[in-house]
Amino acid sequence: MSRRAPEPIAGNGLLPRRAFLAGALLVPGALAQRAGGEGLADAAWSRRPGAPPSAYGAPAPQERAVARIPYTETPGIAPGAAVSFTPLHRLRGRLTPAGLHFERHHAGVPAIDPEQHRLVVHGLVDRPLSFGVDDLLRYPLVSRLYFLECSGNSLVNALPEPQQLPCGVIHGLLSCSEWTGVPLGLLLDEAGVRPEAAWGIAEGADGARMNRSLPLAKLREDALVALYQNGERLRPEQGYPVRLFLPGWEGNASVKWLRRLELVRAPVQSREETARYSDLLASGKAAQFTFEMGVKSVITHPSPGAELGPPGVYEISGLAWSGAGPVASVAVSADGGASWAEAELEAPILPRCLTRFRIAWRWSGGPALLASRASDARGAAQPERAAWLARYSPGGEKYHYNAVQHWRVEPGGAVKNAFA
Amino acid sequence: MSRRAPEPIAGNGLLPRRAFLAGALLVPGALAQRAGGEGLADAAWSRRPGAPPSAYGAPAPQERAVARIPYTETPGIAPGAAVSFTPLHRLRGRLTPAGLHFERHHAGVPAIDPEQHRLVVHGLVDRPLSFGVDDLLRYPLVSRLYFLECSGNSLVNALPEPQQLPCGVIHGLLSCSEWTGVPLGLLLDEAGVRPEAAWGIAEGADGARMNRSLPLAKLREDALVALYQNGERLRPEQGYPVRLFLPGWEGNASVKWLRRLELVRAPVQSREETARYSDLLASGKAAQFTFEMGVKSVITHPSPGAELGPPGVYEISGLAWSGAGPVASVAVSADGGASWAEAELEAPILPRCLTRFRIAWRWSGGPALLASRASDARGAAQPERAAWLARYSPGGEKYHYNAVQHWRVEPGGAVKNAFA
Repeated sequence: MSRRAPEPIAGNGLLPRRAFLAGALLVPGALAQRAGGEGLADAAWSRRPGAPPSAYGAPAPQERAVARIPYTETPGIAPGAAVSFTPLHRLRGRLTPAGLHFERHHAGVPAIDPEQHRLVVHGLVDRPLSFGVDDLLRYPLVSRLYFLECSGNSLVNALPEPQQLPCGVIHGLLSCSEWTGVPLGLLLDEAGVRPEAAWGIAEGADGARMNRSLPLAKLREDALVALYQNGERLRPEQGYPVRLFLPGWEGNASVKWLRRLELVRAPVQSREETARYSDLLASGKAAQFTFEMGVKSVITHPSPGAELGPPGVYEISGLAWSGAGPVASVAVSADGGASWAEAELEAPILPRCLTRFRIAWRWSGGPALLASRASDARGAAQPERAAWLARYSPGGEKYHYNAVQHWRVEPGGAVKNAFA
Repeated sequence: MSRRAPEPIAGNGLLPRRAFLAGALLVPGALAQRAGGEGLADAAWSRRPGAPPSAYGAPAPQERAVARIPYTETPGIAPGAAVSFTPLHRLRGRLTPAGLHFERHHAGVPAIDPEQHRLVVHGLVDRPLSFGVDDLLRYPLVSRLYFLECSGNSLVNALPEPQQLPCGVIHGLLSCSEWTGVPLGLLLDEAGVRPEAAWGIAEGADGARMNRSLPLAKLREDALVALYQNGERLRPEQGYPVRLFLPGWEGNASVKWLRRLELVRAPVQSREETARYSDLLASGKAAQFTFEMGVKSVITHPSPGAELGPPGVYEISGLAWSGAGPVASVAVSADGGASWAEAELEAPILPRCLTRFRIAWRWSGGPALLASRASDARGAAQPERAAWLARYSPGGEKYHYNAVQHWRVEPGGAVKNAFA
């Protein structure tokens, strides 16, 4: 087995990840301690029987800090308007446990009786229909792994100065689950959509009756009337008992607690597509509907709050995604974008799903500027922050932030948010 | 859009699943009600703000029955010896939420302090090493979707009469998660395995110090020192803070609460590979090590406890898996095996992961005998129950049950366990 140092593949220490697997990087004993006899002594918990099985498990008490990070909007403006973030910097892999899925509520989480809840399909249809949950469960189901991202995700990076916040607070309006539901197209076929229909207005049963206008083509293409998340029924904060799910589109289009879908000729011009969730461009015109989320990536490890240990080899790992389909590649830089190396993408690379990327990095102990830049199967790539900002009117509403994220590693090993 | 009845593809009403998608099966209005104005009335929960975000979510109170099903072994024999089953008949998709992952404990769930826990690699190595959790997190990680199945799963079907139990109690020592960990081969390279080593003895830190002998080749091939499940740290009942994970192998080989791995020349002949988990064959000889789980499948919907509604089209859906690699195909029968049709497999079809299959079925209202039969990429297929039983000594220990499961649908719509 060779233990020679591998050749860097980009500046400031980026290394081929396969070097890890060849065992060439690791200095024996540098990370682990030499084992002594005390390593095999019985701890207290090995000397007696432990707890019995449980009906529904929970994380270890020592992991209590791995929680959603709450943020409540100005009280009094809109009761129940709130968000919570997924702690991306504390998770590994690609999936988000349902208990840690980000939340965005316009009027809190309604306590819906699933026996009473109905989904009504009406408007420009031949046969207006009303479905209970049990009716929906008679239809064929499909299951897919999809990300969900709020169009307001990462917007603190549009502020003039980089905010020193954990990765999950900057980018954690992003989660990934297995969603199972009825293809909405089947229900539309049952109702018989009239030729003049071009949009559907989806409305939730929350106190805001949050609604969005959605193009009929997407509703037919791959929209799900979702009933299950990660194998079990939806959680209340994810739309129990039934939500719309639009793969790859901004989160708020996937209307939770779905109670009706009205087929219409034109958008309804709701609050959430005029006052909010529309982008005021540099020209002064607004891009009212920007449904598909752009290609994006972020390094989750290391990220702000982390303190690197001694100089040596580290794994850089992060998440990449695109609303347009599968991620094609992720380039990583350790020198602020002067040079880039291709990261390894973890299989399977699924469309509109998070993909984890990994690359090996030899940290010299000196300063570094880490960044990742994803491109997708349609050929789109992430812009730098300045280019992203230049699209928008400076003081106006803006959403859909997908610029390259840089993290600055300081000589002592602290990691900071940085604008390159 | 055509609404003609599709041609059956096998006896007693099996239909091409694509017929669902063509809208040809559904009688408009048969499942849904015609919508009236009352469908759009505001329920109480739509008239006020709901609950705020939460730190770590939980299922809706109405879903409390979706829980692990506990079973405790004879008290006094082995304190803490217990199992709980995943309620497969209540889940959809392929993933199992961590809170519903099956449990098998030999001495309960130890309450381990992760700061104190060590993993020691010793025995026939050049450098015995001791790793804390933070040490392990410096290594590169891999994430994979894998099933885990207890070798004792489904054994109630070896009893002389079919037990009338839910699918989850018969087959629910089976779950599927994303597991993230350090490739064990990296740690073995660090320790320097001596040429005479051929096995590793993995030992847990539970009160039973449960241990198993494992061939070195598997430990090098794809074994993980797992730290995360479905994105978050392992749950206590799944081995917190660190477990072994051996993809496709019987669950008990993936030793939980892993505290040491000793490299040796030959198996240690522990209780769990002599008195238990070995198969007494018809010849009177025992197959001591049967690590790899066989190819298997089960229809989860409909399954015992379900009551079909009126005659009409239903989706038959179930899970298939193999310890040898990806599932190749699943055949479904509605006439007790007289004829079979290929089910649709839900992508992506991943090695050693659950794969959901689906097929459409027009239930006439008469009797039916439903069954699924999986085959894997290595060409193995599930045996019928009689053929499976014939391999074993009638009164002896037997494990690794993977025979075809038949469910009998009675004319009234009740579903029962049946031996064909």
